[in-house]
Amino acid sequence: MNKPHLAWTETGRKKAYECKIFSISDSYCKSPKQSLENQPDEKPHTFTVIDTKDWAIVIPVIETPKGKQFLMVWQWRHGSQCLSLEFPGGVFEPGENPEEAAARELYEETGYKPNKIKKLGAFSPNPAMMSNTVHFFLAEDLIDTGKQKLDEDEYVEIELIDADEVIKGMGKPPYIHSLMGTALSLYSQSGQ
Amino acid sequence: MNKPHLAWTETGRKKAYECKIFSISDSYCKSPKQSLENQPDEKPHTFTVIDTKDWAIVIPVIETPKGKQFLMVWQWRHGSQCLSLEFPGGVFEPGENPEEAAARELYEETGYKPNKIKKLGAFSPNPAMMSNTVHFFLAEDLIDTGKQKLDEDEYVEIELIDADEVIKGMGKPPYIHSLMGTALSLYSQSGQ
Repeated sequence: MNKPHLAWTETGRKKAYECKIFSISDSYCKSPKQSLENQPDEKPHTFTVIDTKDWAIVIPVIETPKGKQFLMVWQWRHGSQCLSLEFPGGVFEPGENPEEAAARELYEETGYKPNKIKKLGAFSPNPAMMSNTVHFFLAEDLIDTGKQKLDEDEYVEIELIDADEVIKGMGKPPYIHSLMGTALSLYSQSGQ
Repeated sequence: MNKPHLAWTETGRKKAYECKIFSISDSYCKSPKQSLENQPDEKPHTFTVIDTKDWAIVIPVIETPKGKQFLMVWQWRHGSQCLSLEFPGGVFEPGENPEEAAARELYEETGYKPNKIKKLGAFSPNPAMMSNTVHFFLAEDLIDTGKQKLDEDEYVEIELIDADEVIKGMGKPPYIHSLMGTALSLYSQSGQ
């Protein structure tokens, strides 16, 4: 991975926009050629970077007499302006480690607590323009506490769905969220 | 999917920021409760939405005596500030359909042209805050023209890698881009 002929050098950064959920910066960079030839930083290239908190996504698996089921969450998504059926997940709270964030989001959105939780992997949601990391987990031996812990004005509905149906449905509505596909690629590698 | 108790209603939208690669709007919405009870739109909830062009990602497969290989692209990513090893892909150009965008990006980044290209599925990259769609393709029967068509200051390097190695590597560097995991979940469903 040591490929200096491909590596850009950031020479500066300036905040360009900020809102509740992320901030945007202009990143000023020297190209690999400029960096290798030690050229002065006169006309830097500018790239846009979105900084936001890390995220956790958790695949909750329940064994039933008819096979494995996933615990899924229906919710409205304001980017796509439609309903989406997803694994539980969300944004880290201050001080949380990835496993704590995953277990908390699972509990808050579904009311289920996991006795077993296992890291599957981590990605950049979009390394071209985002600096954060999304962490993926498998949750098993789930206990249903019977009560979600939703924010005011958080509207979600949970549903248990056959694992096979979810896997086959990916890439078609209501399975529209790309990161749920990412989660399943890690799930299938993990020998599940 | 008709779940009016989960559906928000957008009542207005205002552009908040714009740059070369996307624009950001504040989306003003009534909650499902406000919508169902036909409450006036006095204190709208505000959500942030990123509008940008659609993207295409293509898995180029080459059959070799030792099995299937994927044609991958090394490139620097400014969000994650590191090298990433990815399937070819990129942003739609005006007037392109998804298949044309996929074939063009494959050719420009790698110099390969596909005799066969097949749609695998489509997702929202992040329906929580993005309005665009990412389309996934499988490309086969590839012809190597021997010449990439890179923009000035586009630095990429191609590499043929055993499909199994890529699949097992997902979620660990240099396979850090979540959408490549999404692509592989569609690839494995497609019976490959």
